[in-house]
Amino acid sequence: MSDTPDSAVQTVRTYIEQHRAAFLDDLVEWLRIPSVSAQPDHAPDVRRSADWLAAKLKDTGFTTAEVWETDGGPAVFGEWRSADADAPTVLVYGHHDVQPAAREDGWHTEPFEPHLADGRIYARGAADDKGQVFFHTLGVRAHLAATGRTTPAVHLKLLIEGEEESGSEHFRELVEAHADRLAADAVIVSDTGMWSEDVPTVCTGMRGVADCEIELHGPDQDIHSGSFGGAVPNPATVAARLVAALHDEDEHVTIPGFYDDIAELTDEERALVAELPFDEAAWLRTATSHGTLGEAGYSTLERVWARPTAELNGIGGGYQGPGGKTIIPASAMLKLSFRLVGGQDPDRIEEAVRAWVAERVPDGIRHEIVFGAPTRPCLTPLDHPALRSVARAMSLAFDGQKVRYTREGGSGPAADLRDVLDVPVLFLGVSVPSDGWHAPNEKVEVDLLLKGVEASAHLWGELAGSLSTAVAPR
Amino acid sequence: MSDTPDSAVQTVRTYIEQHRAAFLDDLVEWLRIPSVSAQPDHAPDVRRSADWLAAKLKDTGFTTAEVWETDGGPAVFGEWRSADADAPTVLVYGHHDVQPAAREDGWHTEPFEPHLADGRIYARGAADDKGQVFFHTLGVRAHLAATGRTTPAVHLKLLIEGEEESGSEHFRELVEAHADRLAADAVIVSDTGMWSEDVPTVCTGMRGVADCEIELHGPDQDIHSGSFGGAVPNPATVAARLVAALHDEDEHVTIPGFYDDIAELTDEERALVAELPFDEAAWLRTATSHGTLGEAGYSTLERVWARPTAELNGIGGGYQGPGGKTIIPASAMLKLSFRLVGGQDPDRIEEAVRAWVAERVPDGIRHEIVFGAPTRPCLTPLDHPALRSVARAMSLAFDGQKVRYTREGGSGPAADLRDVLDVPVLFLGVSVPSDGWHAPNEKVEVDLLLKGVEASAHLWGELAGSLSTAVAPR
Repeated sequence: MSDTPDSAVQTVRTYIEQHRAAFLDDLVEWLRIPSVSAQPDHAPDVRRSADWLAAKLKDTGFTTAEVWETDGGPAVFGEWRSADADAPTVLVYGHHDVQPAAREDGWHTEPFEPHLADGRIYARGAADDKGQVFFHTLGVRAHLAATGRTTPAVHLKLLIEGEEESGSEHFRELVEAHADRLAADAVIVSDTGMWSEDVPTVCTGMRGVADCEIELHGPDQDIHSGSFGGAVPNPATVAARLVAALHDEDEHVTIPGFYDDIAELTDEERALVAELPFDEAAWLRTATSHGTLGEAGYSTLERVWARPTAELNGIGGGYQGPGGKTIIPASAMLKLSFRLVGGQDPDRIEEAVRAWVAERVPDGIRHEIVFGAPTRPCLTPLDHPALRSVARAMSLAFDGQKVRYTREGGSGPAADLRDVLDVPVLFLGVSVPSDGWHAPNEKVEVDLLLKGVEASAHLWGELAGSLSTAVAPR
Repeated sequence: MSDTPDSAVQTVRTYIEQHRAAFLDDLVEWLRIPSVSAQPDHAPDVRRSADWLAAKLKDTGFTTAEVWETDGGPAVFGEWRSADADAPTVLVYGHHDVQPAAREDGWHTEPFEPHLADGRIYARGAADDKGQVFFHTLGVRAHLAATGRTTPAVHLKLLIEGEEESGSEHFRELVEAHADRLAADAVIVSDTGMWSEDVPTVCTGMRGVADCEIELHGPDQDIHSGSFGGAVPNPATVAARLVAALHDEDEHVTIPGFYDDIAELTDEERALVAELPFDEAAWLRTATSHGTLGEAGYSTLERVWARPTAELNGIGGGYQGPGGKTIIPASAMLKLSFRLVGGQDPDRIEEAVRAWVAERVPDGIRHEIVFGAPTRPCLTPLDHPALRSVARAMSLAFDGQKVRYTREGGSGPAADLRDVLDVPVLFLGVSVPSDGWHAPNEKVEVDLLLKGVEASAHLWGELAGSLSTAVAPR
């Protein structure tokens, strides 16, 4: 671990202060591009966003900045090699596409006309993820300014994808196709957040996810529930019975094999979770939920961070209009997603789900199951040296505050990087829960964004120290 | 029971043969009126249909023919008093409104341009219920012709409602408002069918129905199933669990009190059901179902005719579009209907359902239940003299064939007549399962329709004999 004297902290801050206006102006310009990957009519904007970022990386000093095509939205690859040939290589992951947003969804200002007020930038993508990608551009320049270097202390690579918000469908093949150029000693995912404004944290892992849609077909058409009711199987009832059978009364998932080989929380991990200042009432307000319910034997945080789930995302069948209609529906469908934790293999989960469903569907009902592309869980051990470097960089940015550890209940394509590149995945993020990811009035706190710049500025030196230098030059 | 010599049968047939062309022409004219009560833009047609029928009843000889207003579609009331002041009074129930129909639903011809082919009339309402209402107009004339009477053998009343296909919402209040004028010794419901072309049957009862919609509210908005999944209650899952908990593994309904006081099938009733030539494979084809499933210990016919049910008519919650969406939905809803048999009181069922749901909804989920207006079950005892008269009239129409007994799994407003007027309800119908009620290409078999005319022609004399003549003149 390299030593970062107070003077370096101060130099970084001074440099950032001098360049914050231009940095924010640039970010605002990028946020104006509505790079909504889920909406085909925004495809040109996603491309414009990629081009804009590639140009900006060049301006920043990256020696390579390329737009990489996929069968979906284009990604951006940047590289800035260290003059130290045997420096470790770090790959930053983020995304430049954004969630859909429309004024009428409840935005107070236009989602793609960034609005600065009260120390915040309100815009779609401000926190998720353009702000958190962009802080690295000023971060690396501050790193150079503070260290007097002309190249970063690590071989720095960026891969900023263009379809994260629409499911990263082609991400894995992109990573596989470019595995040589993406090779690294660690991945820094710049697409998460921290506990709160007051509690700097480092995320150590994300859950994976496997999702499926199950269609159930009964009679060839909706039939009269008076003439036939009570004597034929109802596919909507079968759908409901599947959902109900997913959990036992302790909210454990009942699918045989579901929990096989999972990484149980260690006592140390449980202690770290328990020491976070968790305010369940506040958490419930964020969730807009009016109660908690989950697996017996685990706290709320443990449930969302470290336990696998079987969740019903959607169900539909029969008549859903006003009033009643006395039918037995012809069909029904349900959409399930399974959050996965370390040790769970999506392929085995799919197999287990298929077998479990097949066994439970009665005669007279035909079913089909379609699984989407899964995302694997990832978790970095608490004692990993690179994880300690990330924590130290965060601590320096946050005035020496103790940095605590969190996890992310959601899932990200970072796991593909880990699997294909065979490297540890680390997380650096400064977004806070109130930033409103995927919601109207998404924002980023400018002060925290600049803390992100600071953390990025300190990170490369830290990682140059902690990551093995025995690796071959990339 | 009066005696009906062969000559009377022949006279009736001859009379019908002489008048069938005009009768069919008139029916076709009526069928051209698209009296769809569920579609507000057809309200003028429903009125036109009522006016048409009232005029036709006058032509037929009814001394009274009035259009009765409701807050929904208008009903038609007709009366033709017998010259025998102490004759019993019989009220015929039917409806002149029809189900929606559009060519694009799969009709081979325009649904409101009656098409005669292969001894059938294809048109919406041909069987349900205009054809089966209209056969009484020729029936009563044939009755007079065969008996040499100038007035019917019973005081004959008709109540033909105008909103049966949209739920008979105002029917009970209509009956209550006109209870004096509707007073009768028996009701003949002319809105059911018989077993098959070859097996003349008389229906002895219908199931009732109570229906409700249950809304379940969880988080204030759809929330991220990664961030919150596993730790908050999911209203769609709660909806599914309610549905799954409705039945035990024997498909018995589990709601406490649901089966209290129900009329169990007697051995005689089970024997009568068992002697019907039931072809389960053919029944399944009609149901377009690919299997049977129902309450343990009962046959398919017993399940649909004589056992109460809890059926899921619709369920919806969360994301139902293409692909996946990893949310915990804000809300879900389900629509249930409960078919009721003798002994079940809809009010007590509602109370039981409300209590059962309230007990099962977990903390953090808010629920609302709205019940529609119930329809009570009705059943006429097999040894009721009027039922024997109906069977004899059917037997005379069907060349002396043995008439068997069926029930109807569906529900009708006839029960309101029984409850308000305190009279037995009997059923006379000649429609067959292939007639396609509520489906595209609804039709009526002309030969069977004329059997209905015959049965009607014989019925009034039969009932004059069998119904108590001790009643006060109406």
